[in-house]
Amino acid sequence: MSIKTQVIEIAGKSEKAANILANISSQVKNKALLEMADELIRNMDYLTTENAKDIDYAGKKGLSGAMIDRLTLDESTLKGMAEGLKEVAALPDPVGEVTSMWRRPNDLLVGRMRIPLGVIGIIYESRPNVTADAAALCLKSGNAVILRGGSEAINSNLAIAKILRDVLRNVNIPEAAIQVIPTTDRQAVSEMLKLDEYIDIIIPRGGEELIRAVVDQSKIPVIKHYKGVCHIFVDESADLDMAVAICMNAKTQRPGVCNAMETLLIHKDIAETFLPRVAKKLRDAGVTLRGCENTRRILPDIETATEDDWYEEYLDLVLAIRVVNDIDEAMAHIEKYGSLHTESIITSDYNNSQRFLNEVNSSSVLVNASTRFSDGFELGLGAEIGISTTKLHAFGPMGLEELTTTKFIIYGNGQIRT
Amino acid sequence: MSIKTQVIEIAGKSEKAANILANISSQVKNKALLEMADELIRNMDYLTTENAKDIDYAGKKGLSGAMIDRLTLDESTLKGMAEGLKEVAALPDPVGEVTSMWRRPNDLLVGRMRIPLGVIGIIYESRPNVTADAAALCLKSGNAVILRGGSEAINSNLAIAKILRDVLRNVNIPEAAIQVIPTTDRQAVSEMLKLDEYIDIIIPRGGEELIRAVVDQSKIPVIKHYKGVCHIFVDESADLDMAVAICMNAKTQRPGVCNAMETLLIHKDIAETFLPRVAKKLRDAGVTLRGCENTRRILPDIETATEDDWYEEYLDLVLAIRVVNDIDEAMAHIEKYGSLHTESIITSDYNNSQRFLNEVNSSSVLVNASTRFSDGFELGLGAEIGISTTKLHAFGPMGLEELTTTKFIIYGNGQIRT
Repeated sequence: MSIKTQVIEIAGKSEKAANILANISSQVKNKALLEMADELIRNMDYLTTENAKDIDYAGKKGLSGAMIDRLTLDESTLKGMAEGLKEVAALPDPVGEVTSMWRRPNDLLVGRMRIPLGVIGIIYESRPNVTADAAALCLKSGNAVILRGGSEAINSNLAIAKILRDVLRNVNIPEAAIQVIPTTDRQAVSEMLKLDEYIDIIIPRGGEELIRAVVDQSKIPVIKHYKGVCHIFVDESADLDMAVAICMNAKTQRPGVCNAMETLLIHKDIAETFLPRVAKKLRDAGVTLRGCENTRRILPDIETATEDDWYEEYLDLVLAIRVVNDIDEAMAHIEKYGSLHTESIITSDYNNSQRFLNEVNSSSVLVNASTRFSDGFELGLGAEIGISTTKLHAFGPMGLEELTTTKFIIYGNGQIRT
Repeated sequence: MSIKTQVIEIAGKSEKAANILANISSQVKNKALLEMADELIRNMDYLTTENAKDIDYAGKKGLSGAMIDRLTLDESTLKGMAEGLKEVAALPDPVGEVTSMWRRPNDLLVGRMRIPLGVIGIIYESRPNVTADAAALCLKSGNAVILRGGSEAINSNLAIAKILRDVLRNVNIPEAAIQVIPTTDRQAVSEMLKLDEYIDIIIPRGGEELIRAVVDQSKIPVIKHYKGVCHIFVDESADLDMAVAICMNAKTQRPGVCNAMETLLIHKDIAETFLPRVAKKLRDAGVTLRGCENTRRILPDIETATEDDWYEEYLDLVLAIRVVNDIDEAMAHIEKYGSLHTESIITSDYNNSQRFLNEVNSSSVLVNASTRFSDGFELGLGAEIGISTTKLHAFGPMGLEELTTTKFIIYGNGQIRT
């Protein structure tokens, strides 16, 4: 069977499964999720044996230690995956919720009911735990999922999917609700991205390169963010202790993630006081600073930030710093160089807080809090399937609700249109 | 200047305008809309003169009378356009609405605020009134719009846009908020559909061929429906008088639109009684009937419906009829042949009404009402920019809210992540 035929067959099965899945009760979906959690633990030996094949191959291919680390399934990662499944089971089911309902003058009762999107394609890189996480969120939201992980994790991903699918069969949910593309051939992705008649949405998870490749090829709508160039603007009225604490948290608590701060903007009137304080703390934590000319007047021993730095997502202990004249210049900088991801203002000024919240065009805008809160769990969505900086459908962290849409339901008693 | 450069320049201006437009108050937007309504009437001579160029050219090209009719701007169509603008001014502004807000355990206050999508591209066919309608809805929802109408209406569209843009300038809204692509060259559409860095969403309005061509080329998400193959299922428990009235309305009130009924499904146990009654009425109204074998046992003189008929959007006084064993067979037919647009059940049975509403996977699902109500105005959205049968972002008729998205706004008092 050609790869094209194989992928079309998978997508066709997904579509059929999705139609059934849309009407399966929360009770049954939750039962499946809890059993899946148990089965991952019960089948630890099988999963680690399959995972060992991937690790062995990764070693031969000369992948880095960090990569192999992310690839590894052990008791602790499997327990984490099982916990994740239980947490998804505990979340409220978005499907069937009637989000609003109103009566028309002709007595038609019109409502919007949440329904699953249908078939979701997830394209991701090395971590095999995404297989269980994404499958759980799609199942709970009534969607069929087609998973395409990295070639380096193929044995692990197929083994995890096997366990999950065995449970589906036991609880009478179509197994095709969760499918992993069984080949590592790149052509499978290209074929998958053509199938807009079967697949409703593609969510790529990984580096910018992966995401651009998916967007370039896809005929299916893609929900994505390329990068997170997150800013903090410390306004002249900021509580400077708070500003230092938030900047430290946003830059150093986990520098390799998309909601870490990459550029710090500072109001000129507090630069002389604030910059040396925050710079000392950041450098003590190992952060390399790059500054504009005005920053370097105050911190002469740091590197110059070039035009490229303002666009950069370092994902590392590096920070670009710019002194600005006022909030307008700060917001203009964000508009020009930002990635629509997450920005925060530190201020005690009411008007500036409101202006920043209203005028900054990013998916998460904060006042007096760390950019690190831009996250599905932290914002209270209960889960996170991804973050979107595309405004269509969802903007910002996406939880279960964002894996649904609404249809109109209309109760009449014989109305005709005149 | 090449067409490519020209289109990129337009899109760049749109993006800049969109950033300003997002924060213009309802008051100013409404003032603009009301002035636009006045100016369309005041400039009737100019508009009809420009329109005459299009009509003249259409005559030379040999376009049909119906086409020329749709193209014509006269006092009555201009008054209709002006009324439309006033109605949009009177609608509530979706921008800035905080749709929900909740407090997290760490005291962060998290909300979702409605914001415009950004830049909207509308690609449409001959009717020049779409230029004013679409521009008004985009303006009200804070979006910049790039309009690309049919080549046969280019002078009319440019003239309408000129009037609207003159008003924008008067009220200090960037003129680039409303732009018409000034060339009729097809390359302009191809170039436009590549600009996913500038344009957030494309809404094509027209026949299936136009829409498919747009989808095939677009790198930008497209909100669309290809066709409306709408079904009515008359259940065995239906009130037959009501069923006749609704079927007549759905098929004959305006057969050329996407929410007209195209296929009638009838429960076998009432077919003998119901079919002759409804058939007589339909035929009196000039409807040609095509039926399945069981239908033809009862109505032997009608044509046979072929497999192709079940997929057909006639947009005409033609109806396909099928007798089904039960609601399951009716829903299976809809799933197989339907277009996810609009379906209605006529029933007095509680369980069947609920099953139909829950299980039918279309964007509008009705009980005991005509499919003709699947329309933004009729459902109470206040306006309609289009209908989506794509589940992403919006599903069903789209009003002003569907031209927005939400961003997260977060009020903190120094929270850092631990």
